[in-house]
Amino acid sequence: MKKFYSEARVIFGDTDAMGIVYHNSYIRWFEQGRTEFLRQIGYPYSVLEKIPFWLPVTFVHCDYKSPAFYDDVLEIAAWPEKMTYVTIEMAYEIRRKETGELLVTGSTGHAMTDDKLKPVRLAKLCPELFGALKALYDEE
Amino acid sequence: MKKFYSEARVIFGDTDAMGIVYHNSYIRWFEQGRTEFLRQIGYPYSVLEKIPFWLPVTFVHCDYKSPAFYDDVLEIAAWPEKMTYVTIEMAYEIRRKETGELLVTGSTGHAMTDDKLKPVRLAKLCPELFGALKALYDEE
Amino acid sequence: MKKFYSEARVIFGDTDAMGIVYHNSYIRWFEQGRTEFLRQIGYPYSVLEKIPFWLPVTFVHCDYKSPAFYDDVLEIAAWPEKMTYVTIEMAYEIRRKETGELLVTGSTGHAMTDDKLKPVRLAKLCPELFGALKALYDEE
Amino acid sequence: MKKFYSEARVIFGDTDAMGIVYHNSYIRWFEQGRTEFLRQIGYPYSVLEKIPFWLPVTFVHCDYKSPAFYDDVLEIAAWPEKMTYVTIEMAYEIRRKETGELLVTGSTGHAMTDDKLKPVRLAKLCPELFGALKALYDEE
Repeated sequence: MKKFYSEARVIFGDTDAMGIVYHNSYIRWFEQGRTEFLRQIGYPYSVLEKIPFWLPVTFVHCDYKSPAFYDDVLEIAAWPEKMTYVTIEMAYEIRRKETGELLVTGSTGHAMTDDKLKPVRLAKLCPELFGALKALYDEE
Repeated sequence: MKKFYSEARVIFGDTDAMGIVYHNSYIRWFEQGRTEFLRQIGYPYSVLEKIPFWLPVTFVHCDYKSPAFYDDVLEIAAWPEKMTYVTIEMAYEIRRKETGELLVTGSTGHAMTDDKLKPVRLAKLCPELFGALKALYDEE
Repeated sequence: MKKFYSEARVIFGDTDAMGIVYHNSYIRWFEQGRTEFLRQIGYPYSVLEKIPFWLPVTFVHCDYKSPAFYDDVLEIAAWPEKMTYVTIEMAYEIRRKETGELLVTGSTGHAMTDDKLKPVRLAKLCPELFGALKALYDEE
Repeated sequence: MKKFYSEARVIFGDTDAMGIVYHNSYIRWFEQGRTEFLRQIGYPYSVLEKIPFWLPVTFVHCDYKSPAFYDDVLEIAAWPEKMTYVTIEMAYEIRRKETGELLVTGSTGHAMTDDKLKPVRLAKLCPELFGALKALYDEE
């Protein structure tokens, strides 16, 4: 599956008193990664909010392999892993850019809703975006 | 001026890799302190949102005296320091509860608005709350 | 299994522009829940750091059932779900206190390490804590 | 005074239930701005930690002019405003990149310390960095 990339640099605000990145900070970077993925396939938020189309989170999973440290540059990979007519599942990998070392892997589940958090059928609401996502998923 | 108190316990998520509480975390506790202050004078958010009355932040100031550490219990004092017909200024002190040591002092400024961020005259919109705040301020 | 309880009240800093609690905030409350669990069984951080004994996070999972809102009081339940000689797995439930509605369920995995993140055998390092955790786990 | 620039894009995790960026998020971007400033004058953290030289925060001030929204790209300007032999004060401006609109201005004070938070004289400890900072400040 094609992966979509973005970057972040660790600030003190992302770390904790163990001297490493706080485990929660990666979940924020997952959000950054999936927003950039949507932008890269032509669906930035400015377009999605006009549909209106939201992807509220139904689950988060993150496995921690190795710690990141203050001032590290992180490479965030995000891609659609599974898709149904009413849900989508994203997968993530975050690496230390300088060394390529894998730090965390993870996934998030999303419902497809309107801006009132009511479920929608994307295939009907916006066939172009549904087609774009399905094409990516079928590529694998 | 009468002070209004609440408490918080420091978690790893509040600290940073310097081994102490991240400077930003105190600004979150200021928010907790002023919400509890409003609740204690009889105006919890459930009442304010019906008016509707919001207090968006116009400035934040925080002076750091001494660091807090993981698992410290903090005592947050908040009180209204200055008031005009369209603004209010809150003051704060945060202490380590166990020792009473002063950790930070600070202040926040607030506009008085409705839920569209449009300025309102509280004295007209909700004379009871305006009176309650003014009485506190005049006490000094 | 016996559950251990603590509480938190939602501030604006925990919410996001969807008008609900940001999905990441619950992971912070998991941390609060497991710290309080350790305190309630007699092992607050001040005791653990003297051993020294750390529980770095190896995985996080969270399933979102229903949203929490600004100013909600949350009831956080945390308990040890699985245990080996070198790892422990915690489980969590977070409910809206006023209604009892279940908002999220989740789990976290932890390695048992010293303060250099080196694996330790708790049964050897601190048999009393190992025994206390094992007793809880065997209770089920 | 020469300004030093970096950028950030707003994620949901930076916003709150008022539908705008949470006031605290800007303080995080101040941290990003001053780290990038130090990097741009040739003193990334990897160099500073070897000295060792830390700049713990002694005060934060932020004035809010106009709100930022989800998915906005922010332009963060940071520069040294005042300097003594033992302290430095940084100034900040954050603008919406697309429109150039000024969103917040602010400042932070910093003590000059070693990695134990003990005060140091930078002019003695690292005359090159002291000279580089002083030259910037004298430029004004």
